[in-house]
Amino acid sequence: MHKTLFAAALLPLLAAAAPENEPPKALAPLEIVGQAPAADWSAIAPADLLVMDLAPDAAGKARRVVIQLLPPPFTQGWIGNIRKLAAAHWWDGTSINRVQDNYVVQWGDADGEDAAKAKPLPQGLATIPQAQYTVHAAPLGWVNPMHDAYASNTGVVLGWPVSYAPDGVTPVHCYGTVGVGRNMPPDTGTGAELYAVIGHAPRQLDRNIAVVGRVIEGIEHLSSLPRGTGDLGFYKTAAERTPIRAIRLGTDVPDLPRYQYLSTESASFARYADARANRRDPFYIRPAGGADICNIPVPVRRAP
Amino acid sequence: MHKTLFAAALLPLLAAAAPENEPPKALAPLEIVGQAPAADWSAIAPADLLVMDLAPDAAGKARRVVIQLLPPPFTQGWIGNIRKLAAAHWWDGTSINRVQDNYVVQWGDADGEDAAKAKPLPQGLATIPQAQYTVHAAPLGWVNPMHDAYASNTGVVLGWPVSYAPDGVTPVHCYGTVGVGRNMPPDTGTGAELYAVIGHAPRQLDRNIAVVGRVIEGIEHLSSLPRGTGDLGFYKTAAERTPIRAIRLGTDVPDLPRYQYLSTESASFARYADARANRRDPFYIRPAGGADICNIPVPVRRAP
Repeated sequence: MHKTLFAAALLPLLAAAAPENEPPKALAPLEIVGQAPAADWSAIAPADLLVMDLAPDAAGKARRVVIQLLPPPFTQGWIGNIRKLAAAHWWDGTSINRVQDNYVVQWGDADGEDAAKAKPLPQGLATIPQAQYTVHAAPLGWVNPMHDAYASNTGVVLGWPVSYAPDGVTPVHCYGTVGVGRNMPPDTGTGAELYAVIGHAPRQLDRNIAVVGRVIEGIEHLSSLPRGTGDLGFYKTAAERTPIRAIRLGTDVPDLPRYQYLSTESASFARYADARANRRDPFYIRPAGGADICNIPVPVRRAP
Repeated sequence: MHKTLFAAALLPLLAAAAPENEPPKALAPLEIVGQAPAADWSAIAPADLLVMDLAPDAAGKARRVVIQLLPPPFTQGWIGNIRKLAAAHWWDGTSINRVQDNYVVQWGDADGEDAAKAKPLPQGLATIPQAQYTVHAAPLGWVNPMHDAYASNTGVVLGWPVSYAPDGVTPVHCYGTVGVGRNMPPDTGTGAELYAVIGHAPRQLDRNIAVVGRVIEGIEHLSSLPRGTGDLGFYKTAAERTPIRAIRLGTDVPDLPRYQYLSTESASFARYADARANRRDPFYIRPAGGADICNIPVPVRRAP
């Protein structure tokens, strides 16, 4: 007998016909996703992908991390810089320099703070004001009916988790979120130094730093890296850093799979979100009745 | 110049005297913890620790994970079983069998579901009803003033994050929480199969499974393990599993450091929790005004 344990409900189960006189089994969230019609999936343009190839692991296995960039109107200043950095192949030969448990993995130029050794940045990068962390006009998307500890409301807009506040809409920090490292304010970072969240959602960073994307494939190549033992999880020696072979826009990567996200305007998404908040599949005894925004991750898949 | 980046505020800074005419700098949460008087720290009894020694890593380095068990009145049925299993050395020679990204690491008998090969359990383990996931009488501790997506209220009781509901108090799932794997209800698990959370808080498991403790040291030895590629993150081959050398109660481990937690009844904890919710240290531009219960982890340290 296969061990089901506590997460069996995450596995799509065979859709066996229910015997007569037996109520239909409630579907688990991923079963709802698995049954979503093709029309409920939205294509992700290759131009909105950032593909990071790390050096192979100790066994010689390739390690690729695929990042989806935020669409307009969100944080387009930083994303413009990131497109320039990728086009200039600026990250090639840089490294992952920091892995802090339950927080972030961070990459870029390990010598970036040393004026004598820093790798020169490409010409024409924009300086972006912190006001652009929050957008004042964004379409209204799905709204999470549950309370949030950090904002008036949360929801999903154009496929992205956000918070709503009287002064605007802000992309939020969840597991897998990619953002722009910066120094002390008023610095807001160029986009050359990026991080990905590998722990519990550090929502205190919302509205304080630029979110630019999320890892949609290969996050395990970041989250399972050895933790750095220096301050803030920086590696103490160069030998501990993981080299970055290349970071490219998706349009510059041959044979990249096509990706889709479950449209947050679709009926399937509403059913999925409801099932995340109210687990009625057989493993659960007491549905919670709610879920925080980071516990309703937007489904992303390779196009079938 | 040392790179400060966005998490500099996590580092205790030198407590330089503020120049005249300059307002005192707001303290970061860990600075408040660092200044807490000795009286605000509570000892953790070695009898309430579970010490897991994994096989050394590829470089021959020891890997020890220290788990603190929940105090009464919480989930004492399962913890009684865990004490028996540790005293019987039952886990010695078992393994870590599952690592699912952004979810859990799970350990126990890899053949536990195969009646012909399962390792016999010690005599006298209790069968615990699911009603005991929630406790009906618990002391009131610190209450988080912020809304929660899963429960009427949350807080910290006797040093442990909990949810409050009209029918009782329940320990909640945060990063590092240790719980008892089980099969489908009404099974509630014996305690022989344990998991630790290595991702965003899976709060949907609250009130559906027994929380028994939390990792207080060495979680990086679990969270950085290679992810399993089978269903639910189970390893596909025995060679991928990490062997467990021994799991012992703290009283049976020579030379174990002494540990303390910041008393959640202390003024220092209240200041720390407020600072987690309202980051006023120099890195932050806009304090959130709140934090979810899993983003206010109870500070634990080795006794100085």
